[in-house]
Amino acid sequence: MKSLYVIKIGGNVIDNSENLYNFLKDFTALDGHKILIHGGGKIATQMSEQLGIEAKLIDGRRITDIETLRVVTMVYAGLINKNIVAQLQRFGTNAIGLTGADGNFIKATKRPVKTIDYGYVGDLDSQSVNAENISKLLEAGFTPAFCALTHDGDGQMLNTNADTIASAIAIALANYYDTTLIYCFEKKGVLKDINDEESLIREINPVRYDELKKEQIIHSGMLPKLDNAFAAISCGVKAVVIGKSDELGKLGNNQPFGTRLSN
Amino acid sequence: MKSLYVIKIGGNVIDNSENLYNFLKDFTALDGHKILIHGGGKIATQMSEQLGIEAKLIDGRRITDIETLRVVTMVYAGLINKNIVAQLQRFGTNAIGLTGADGNFIKATKRPVKTIDYGYVGDLDSQSVNAENISKLLEAGFTPAFCALTHDGDGQMLNTNADTIASAIAIALANYYDTTLIYCFEKKGVLKDINDEESLIREINPVRYDELKKEQIIHSGMLPKLDNAFAAISCGVKAVVIGKSDELGKLGNNQPFGTRLSN
Repeated sequence: MKSLYVIKIGGNVIDNSENLYNFLKDFTALDGHKILIHGGGKIATQMSEQLGIEAKLIDGRRITDIETLRVVTMVYAGLINKNIVAQLQRFGTNAIGLTGADGNFIKATKRPVKTIDYGYVGDLDSQSVNAENISKLLEAGFTPAFCALTHDGDGQMLNTNADTIASAIAIALANYYDTTLIYCFEKKGVLKDINDEESLIREINPVRYDELKKEQIIHSGMLPKLDNAFAAISCGVKAVVIGKSDELGKLGNNQPFGTRLSN
Repeated sequence: MKSLYVIKIGGNVIDNSENLYNFLKDFTALDGHKILIHGGGKIATQMSEQLGIEAKLIDGRRITDIETLRVVTMVYAGLINKNIVAQLQRFGTNAIGLTGADGNFIKATKRPVKTIDYGYVGDLDSQSVNAENISKLLEAGFTPAFCALTHDGDGQMLNTNADTIASAIAIALANYYDTTLIYCFEKKGVLKDINDEESLIREINPVRYDELKKEQIIHSGMLPKLDNAFAAISCGVKAVVIGKSDELGKLGNNQPFGTRLSN
């Protein structure tokens, strides 16, 4: 099987034009098929403020009402996504900027209202990602760049967590490619001591993960991320790598990068 | 050769959700390969006003400064384009929403500053459209939906007239497909009497066009559109049809639709 990198970046890359520039250059330097997934960053919040739309939070969770959905559709799919695509083109990556509505690549279900109505938020299941259609793009020589939006197949755009999209794409494409899922974030990887970047753990397998959990070595905030990573691995993803965006270049140079999770 | 429709819609369709719904349904019903190109509509102007960005005009021509470019990138590529894509998906058209930056499909040149600095406006030439890459999408089963944005290949998005994009795409794809270019606008087609929709001229060839011009029958405002249409035909486009968006369904039913220009 050919190799595929599915790489997710968040606000810490998007909000800083120098970080973004360097990241996209390193992304371009990686060999093989690639898919980029980007989150939103601060621009959507700033745009909402400028337009006088109040952020709606219930129990600390953000609600996507129809006005907020309009803003994120503009900012994620328009401003951020097309800026990223234009930059990637400059570096020679033949990117195509996408939402889940495009090509019917990611069909979500509007989150059911239980105690909280999250609004226009889309949840994914194992059938959500159309891996065949995405692989057609890859095989035609394009590099998909997804923002964190999906659709319900019935004309409605939906807001979906970028980490979730990255994981769902990696799992779905694992049938077609030797797939590595990479989460770029602000730390060098999984740390033994959250305040010490030098305490990086290079490799974790399920046995070691159980030990680390028992010994309470990993910061509790990382546990959901790691649980999701191992879930992806158990669904066929070859490895999940968690690392710092500005070190992605190491991966291209076959140097150790971040924390590698695998079986 | 397979057939291809390149269809351009403007503000009169986009600004009215019922018109847009009907148009996209009729668009879906058309057989064969299709490419949609859409203009901006009033939403960009409204968004600029909401954000306190003043429309800049010099000698009546709109200037795309950097703030305006941000707004049109949000509105054209985000809000309008993804709304159109989500609607098309509902009807069963496997649309992919695009700018010229995506797939490097349309590379423009920033308009040189002579007496007026138009700002971030992109002009096209005969090499601008990457027909091969667009045909790959079509052959993979996707229906491209372009908004009126291009890029310069060096990381900069540019604002480009939607009529110009439609014509450039049709000409470039004419080497690959039996291409018909359709301009949807608010009238039934080319009229002998601009106030009488029943005075529609069904067919115009170059000889008839010369006669109509000599007799000053066609409204002067239509002449640039028709000159461009015949220019496209002389570059290989099979026919250009100018008609009313809400009558596109006739084309699908093999009924006469609009004014057909051809050799």
